[in-house]
Amino acid sequence: MDLSRRIDKAMSAAIAHAQGADNGATPGRLAAALNYAVTPGGARIRPTICLSVALACGDDRPALADRAAIALELIHCASLVHDDLPAFDNADFRRGKPTVHLAYSEPLAVLTGDSLIIAAFDALAGAPEADAMRALRLVRLLAHHTGMPHGICAGQGWESESRVDLRAYHRSKTGALFMAATQMGALAAGHEPEPWEELGARIGEAFQVADDLRDALYDERALGKPAGQDAVNARPSAVEELGVQGAIKRLQDILSGAIASIPSCPGEAQLAQLVRVYAERMTPVAPVRV
Amino acid sequence: MDLSRRIDKAMSAAIAHAQGADNGATPGRLAAALNYAVTPGGARIRPTICLSVALACGDDRPALADRAAIALELIHCASLVHDDLPAFDNADFRRGKPTVHLAYSEPLAVLTGDSLIIAAFDALAGAPEADAMRALRLVRLLAHHTGMPHGICAGQGWESESRVDLRAYHRSKTGALFMAATQMGALAAGHEPEPWEELGARIGEAFQVADDLRDALYDERALGKPAGQDAVNARPSAVEELGVQGAIKRLQDILSGAIASIPSCPGEAQLAQLVRVYAERMTPVAPVRV
Repeated sequence: MDLSRRIDKAMSAAIAHAQGADNGATPGRLAAALNYAVTPGGARIRPTICLSVALACGDDRPALADRAAIALELIHCASLVHDDLPAFDNADFRRGKPTVHLAYSEPLAVLTGDSLIIAAFDALAGAPEADAMRALRLVRLLAHHTGMPHGICAGQGWESESRVDLRAYHRSKTGALFMAATQMGALAAGHEPEPWEELGARIGEAFQVADDLRDALYDERALGKPAGQDAVNARPSAVEELGVQGAIKRLQDILSGAIASIPSCPGEAQLAQLVRVYAERMTPVAPVRV
Repeated sequence: MDLSRRIDKAMSAAIAHAQGADNGATPGRLAAALNYAVTPGGARIRPTICLSVALACGDDRPALADRAAIALELIHCASLVHDDLPAFDNADFRRGKPTVHLAYSEPLAVLTGDSLIIAAFDALAGAPEADAMRALRLVRLLAHHTGMPHGICAGQGWESESRVDLRAYHRSKTGALFMAATQMGALAAGHEPEPWEELGARIGEAFQVADDLRDALYDERALGKPAGQDAVNARPSAVEELGVQGAIKRLQDILSGAIASIPSCPGEAQLAQLVRVYAERMTPVAPVRV
């Protein structure tokens, strides 16, 4: 089964489980909002990286790797729903359609985010007891890269500080879930996660720079969400710091470093190739708006 | 060590861990908000029930029981922070002080709730690997009683439905964390959790009725939060359904049933005594406002 089919299948199962269709009365609007928040899937980049690393490490527990992959995606979707709230980015569009708080209401958007966070941990906890030790360590990694003090919640928290530690900000806001992706992929396949942190951190940095570039160069239609938000919200950006060409050079340097950081493993060459493909996809070629 | 000291010690450790004081740069306002949201502690009723059940079952892994207890309390505190948000109850006071969104801001209140949810799972995931199997099952129970389709998120979700299944609503909104408390206490001590669900469900029903009574009978100063909110928000209430005396009678019936439901275990008698003490505390004696 190719990666995107594995991810889609596991995501559908997790959402169906959270919706609880065949298991007593459930609040229907919140159940519908859960599915709304995770579709259409788009690139599913974090779970793809997670499964790619698991495969590079032998993927001896594919069902556990699938759980790790979609746990990451559920957290990512939760963070988007909460980040879009009026109190944060106040975004109207996401994935080319109205954001969850506009489509369903603000209370349901808060609850959708909360429920998706919990569904992520539930996905890992549903692992068979024979895999309990690995699964528990996966829960630990996910919590570490998601909550406080260094996960994506911390990253978002930096935006409420008057003095921002930029390195800590980017590392937690964007990097954390990519570090989680590489580390959880390795761990799900029985490899120690620590050596995989650097690859995740570098992919995260690359995505941050690529996102800054997209935000500065593309229009709303190409992004499926409002453009120019970094400037509007006065957020730190690599484009602001280095200019467009400088940011593109920076992106390429980071991705070379990412490839060099891949730990020795059976699927090392294929994984390097995957990063190269992402590198090409991430580098802007046709700016619509300057 | 008495229960409240066990709970305070484990809570302080979990909050310090989430604040990450000695471990690199962290966003200080969010870190402060985490502590603000869980203090002052009040009755810590859910963790107390959890530890009481663990003790009744032999408490052979006290450190794991402590983790289970504070995981429940962290989730409970998270739910209060999110429920108090302007989009939900728009509450100004909680624990006798301004709510988190007033004291820190709405974005930080959303992130505080998110971070506390994650800290709850992190607390369980930090269990030693020798306890991995029990810890993973604790994660599963916590997720089940917290998220969708039957946890406290679902309970809150019912408030956005035009047709409410009242039994499902109360069972998830108030009952779920009490079921989690009894079941997780038993499981932490190596007992099967299923037989403990009914005790938790009945304690939850009793609390719901007691809360309805307090909301209807007491003033803001006695509650430490706004009173009369059920009427204001047109929420279903046992007082509205049965009247004050009817609701008190209902409360007493439920608690008798709770005591009768306690599974056979070494500490059965002490646990029954504990429920009796709660019963007395919960029954209103001096209505300040009628």
